[in-house]
Amino acid sequence: MPADGTALRWRGGPDGQLILLDQTLLPARCQELTCRDEKTVAEAIRHLRVRGAPAIGVAAAYGVVLGLQSAVPGTTGSLRARLEEVIRCLAGSRPTAVNLFWALERMRRAADGLLAEPETGPALLSGLLDEARAIQEADVATCLAIGTHGSVLLEDGHGVLTHCNAGALATSGRGTALSVIYAAHESGKRLKVFADETRPLLQGARLTCWELLQQGIDTTLICDSMAAPLMREGRIHIVLVGADRIAANGDTANKIGTYGLAVLAHAHQIPFFVAAPCCTWDLDTPRGEEIPIELRCADEVTHLAGHQTAPEGVQVHNPAFDITPARLITGFISEHGVFQTADQAIALARARNMPFP
Amino acid sequence: MPADGTALRWRGGPDGQLILLDQTLLPARCQELTCRDEKTVAEAIRHLRVRGAPAIGVAAAYGVVLGLQSAVPGTTGSLRARLEEVIRCLAGSRPTAVNLFWALERMRRAADGLLAEPETGPALLSGLLDEARAIQEADVATCLAIGTHGSVLLEDGHGVLTHCNAGALATSGRGTALSVIYAAHESGKRLKVFADETRPLLQGARLTCWELLQQGIDTTLICDSMAAPLMREGRIHIVLVGADRIAANGDTANKIGTYGLAVLAHAHQIPFFVAAPCCTWDLDTPRGEEIPIELRCADEVTHLAGHQTAPEGVQVHNPAFDITPARLITGFISEHGVFQTADQAIALARARNMPFP
Repeated sequence: MPADGTALRWRGGPDGQLILLDQTLLPARCQELTCRDEKTVAEAIRHLRVRGAPAIGVAAAYGVVLGLQSAVPGTTGSLRARLEEVIRCLAGSRPTAVNLFWALERMRRAADGLLAEPETGPALLSGLLDEARAIQEADVATCLAIGTHGSVLLEDGHGVLTHCNAGALATSGRGTALSVIYAAHESGKRLKVFADETRPLLQGARLTCWELLQQGIDTTLICDSMAAPLMREGRIHIVLVGADRIAANGDTANKIGTYGLAVLAHAHQIPFFVAAPCCTWDLDTPRGEEIPIELRCADEVTHLAGHQTAPEGVQVHNPAFDITPARLITGFISEHGVFQTADQAIALARARNMPFP
Repeated sequence: MPADGTALRWRGGPDGQLILLDQTLLPARCQELTCRDEKTVAEAIRHLRVRGAPAIGVAAAYGVVLGLQSAVPGTTGSLRARLEEVIRCLAGSRPTAVNLFWALERMRRAADGLLAEPETGPALLSGLLDEARAIQEADVATCLAIGTHGSVLLEDGHGVLTHCNAGALATSGRGTALSVIYAAHESGKRLKVFADETRPLLQGARLTCWELLQQGIDTTLICDSMAAPLMREGRIHIVLVGADRIAANGDTANKIGTYGLAVLAHAHQIPFFVAAPCCTWDLDTPRGEEIPIELRCADEVTHLAGHQTAPEGVQVHNPAFDITPARLITGFISEHGVFQTADQAIALARARNMPFP
């Protein structure tokens, strides 16, 4: 861990299984979870055993393969029906990260092509597995490219603030925001990384610190509320975060707490960058207000490690994400380069003869 | 609880004890701690068994009485030496809240007067107890006056954000920021209070929610990072916090997270008020930069309820307070009224023939 992408991996051929690292147990335990059907994958996404927008996209793609295993051999009609059932199950796991829906749509298109052929049973499974693998391999390459493009933004001696976990554990490669840090670190720049703990589920404390320490990067854990004074003291030179969905106008959904950091960075004139693959853009959603925000259960806030910390009966507001308006985002770091608007991103992708998103 | 001030109370006469509610155990358990010497009081302050700037001032005042009990009867010289030892012990418990030093200074002045008399043994103890009681009674009255002055700032239907605990548990009365909420609630205004959980020690979740629920106030617990989107959604109409020390220029030390909230409130054009007794002003400290900020141990951030949540070996930055510059503070709510500068506060106090601070 983390650069070899063990957040998730496929074991075996078309009749194989998806192996996930159960991230809810980190850093205390490294325990794998074997998924043999789409319901286990959907449950793992819902309970954040696998999380991070790119990683849940890849997990869902493999989930489609798992879901179809039980339907083969079958008629084209029964396979189509099963495909829709599997996609519905996986799409219902979490609402905000668009990579999930993007990956499922890619799998549906691949299945459509495969189902148009006669005798599609084994060929369907192996074709779907190829597609899921292609999504995963592209994610690995995308992470590396994001790191390369973003690392020029970091200078030797910089203090870097990151929120939640946008690292290897959030992707099948080596991350988005953290890939930028890894690339800059490898190029010899000495960085001081501040990791927000990221309440309520502590992905920053549990996952980001764990990843960064394994790479030998100077890492300091802070509570989310401590970022502002560090900014004021001049100890933060850049903020790097990931994204779960980017609307056509650049408004960005990311882990709760991101919007506040963006306002604070703006007030302290600190550059604020979003590192995300282009498949995180959702051009069908014009503005941030239209991105659905997942509300999660009260227990995540009122209980810590099974221990109740708030009084019985208190109301809890627990949105998993917030929306940062485009005007607060200095730039987007993607596999195609750094840009500021969807139009620039599309032009960049076109220049490289690549699809967007 | 909370309006009857059971955060701390004196039991008995000059040879009595200080009874504290151990706030580290709330809300799971209401357990009292009996203090029989100044060291137990200092330990209770250091470990936040009693916390909140006004409450630790009152606790320290009683701690002086406890510390002198063992020195009586004694010579004037031995009593003076013991007094300085006791004050040094209590003053070393926490560095930021000025009310602690203010209360100790009041006790020293009272002792000086008493020690000037012959045969000061029992009279010294009973005189010191009278002074500690006077500090406590003034705090009760101050809290009520803060509530009355501040409540006019709240309107029916307002969403109110508060941070940490500036309530009955932080004072010997019914609080500072929360006193404003209690007074507005009692006058029939329907409020929706959002309580920041306040990492790392969760005073908001554990103490503020507990207090507010007992008063039947509509209370919603949020993580600290969730305040910003609530502000953007127009659900917060005013921010009310307490203070641990206010420099002569109005820069205010308060629980870590306060500065970030002030920046966010400013960005969203939401009024941001500090509710604090005038003894929180430290006119000897010209600016916020000169207020000492307590750095607390890493365990508070890396462990939750004895459970380790961050990887071994990670660095931790854990300041207990931050400084909010005066320009971000809409006004100060004190026992003398609402004002914006120390000069106004002094004039207000003078008009009422009251000392400042």
